[in-house]
Amino acid sequence: MSAAAAAGAPFRLYSYWRSSCAWRVRIGLNLKGVEHEYVPVHLTRGGGAQNTAEYQEKNPLRTVPLLEWEEDGKLQRLSQSMAILVFLEERYPAPPLWPRDPLLKAQAWMLAEIPNSGIQPLQNLVVTQKVKNELGGDGNAWAREWNERGLAALEGWARPLAGKFMLGDSVTVADVYLVPQLYGARRFGVDLAPFPTLTRVEQACEALDAFARARPERQPDAEK
Amino acid sequence: MSAAAAAGAPFRLYSYWRSSCAWRVRIGLNLKGVEHEYVPVHLTRGGGAQNTAEYQEKNPLRTVPLLEWEEDGKLQRLSQSMAILVFLEERYPAPPLWPRDPLLKAQAWMLAEIPNSGIQPLQNLVVTQKVKNELGGDGNAWAREWNERGLAALEGWARPLAGKFMLGDSVTVADVYLVPQLYGARRFGVDLAPFPTLTRVEQACEALDAFARARPERQPDAEK
Repeated sequence: MSAAAAAGAPFRLYSYWRSSCAWRVRIGLNLKGVEHEYVPVHLTRGGGAQNTAEYQEKNPLRTVPLLEWEEDGKLQRLSQSMAILVFLEERYPAPPLWPRDPLLKAQAWMLAEIPNSGIQPLQNLVVTQKVKNELGGDGNAWAREWNERGLAALEGWARPLAGKFMLGDSVTVADVYLVPQLYGARRFGVDLAPFPTLTRVEQACEALDAFARARPERQPDAEK
Repeated sequence: MSAAAAAGAPFRLYSYWRSSCAWRVRIGLNLKGVEHEYVPVHLTRGGGAQNTAEYQEKNPLRTVPLLEWEEDGKLQRLSQSMAILVFLEERYPAPPLWPRDPLLKAQAWMLAEIPNSGIQPLQNLVVTQKVKNELGGDGNAWAREWNERGLAALEGWARPLAGKFMLGDSVTVADVYLVPQLYGARRFGVDLAPFPTLTRVEQACEALDAFARARPERQPDAEK
C-alpha cells in the first residue's frame, strides 16, 4: 500500500464540479464514507483540460470522472462512473448501492441505465457543442428533448417500483443517477411537472448529507 | 411458475435483428444456454413497431431489447441490455460474464461502458435520424465520428488489459459489447485499422458458436 493509502486518502478523484458523471461518483464515495483527494479538471477553460496530452495519457476517453490509486505498488485507474461505482461496491460493501435479490438488482440497473446510456450521453457538453457549432442547431433544445424523452420513460418505469426512493425505501444506484440528471434537465429548461415520482424521490435524496455534499456548488472548483 | 416456464422457455426476448443492444443480450443468452422465445419488433417499418401504444405499455423507453417472463404468477419485464445481462448473470452464474476479482470486475465494466454509454447511444437510429431530418446533417458522418472517437479510447484502455479476449483470456461482458459495436462501426464506414486489439479480439469472439448464432443475419427477422 502506498504512503498516501496508508495515510487514509488512497484515491484521487478527477472531477469537474458541474459534471453529472463525476457527481454520481461523489455521491457514491460520500455514501460509503470513502476518503479521497479531489483533483479538478476544468472541462471548458482553454479548450478543456481533459484534452491535454497529460490527461489523455491518464484517460484516453478524455472524460471525468477518473479514479486513480496505487495498489501493490502499481498505479491503477478506472474511467466511467458505473465502473467506479461497481468497484466501490466491491471494496466497500456497506451501505450497499445494489439490492441483493437478483430481480431487484436488475431493476436498479435498469433505472440507472436510463440516465446512464439513455439520456446523459446525448446531452453532454461535447455533443451539444457539436450540434451547435457544426450543425448550426440549438444545443439546449437538443438536450431538452432527450431529457424529456428519457425522463418520461424513467417516470414510467419508476412509478410502480419506487417507494421513498427509486426502488423501494432504500437508496440504490438508481437514486445516484437520478439526482444529477434532474439538475441537468433543469439547466436545459425541462419542465419536470410530468415527472412527480422522480421529483419526489429527488427531494428525499437531497435531504441526505451524502447527496447534499456532492452537489456542484459545494465542490472546491465551483464557480459562481 | 407459468406453463411456459415449466415447458422450458420462460423468457420472451423482444428483439430486432440489426439492433446492437438486442444483439448483446442474444450473445448473453447463448453463452449461458438460456432458452427463450424470439419476438421480433420491426424498428423501422411503418414508423416503428416500438412506437405503438401496445409496445410502449410494455416498455415506455420504446427500445429493444426487452425481456419478459412470468414469475410467481406475475409478469416481469426488464429493459436495457446491461440490466438484462446482470439479471442473467445472477440467475445463471455459469459461465460468468464478469470476473470475481473486484478490480478485474470493474475493468470489465469500464470496457463495456465505453460502447454502452460512450458510443452506441450517440449513433443509434433515432439519433442519426434526428441529425439528418431535423438538423440537415449527415447522419452517417455523425455516427462515424462518435465511433472513431469512442473506439480510439476503447483501444487505448484495452491494449494493456486484453489477452485472447478484451480482458485476459476469458470471455467477459466487455466482449459482448465489443462485437456488435464493431459491426455498427463498419456499417458507418469506420476504418478499423487503427484498432488492432479490438479487431483481433473480435475474431476470437466470432469463432465461438454463442457469438456466431447471435449475429443479425442469423435471426428469424433478418432481411436481405
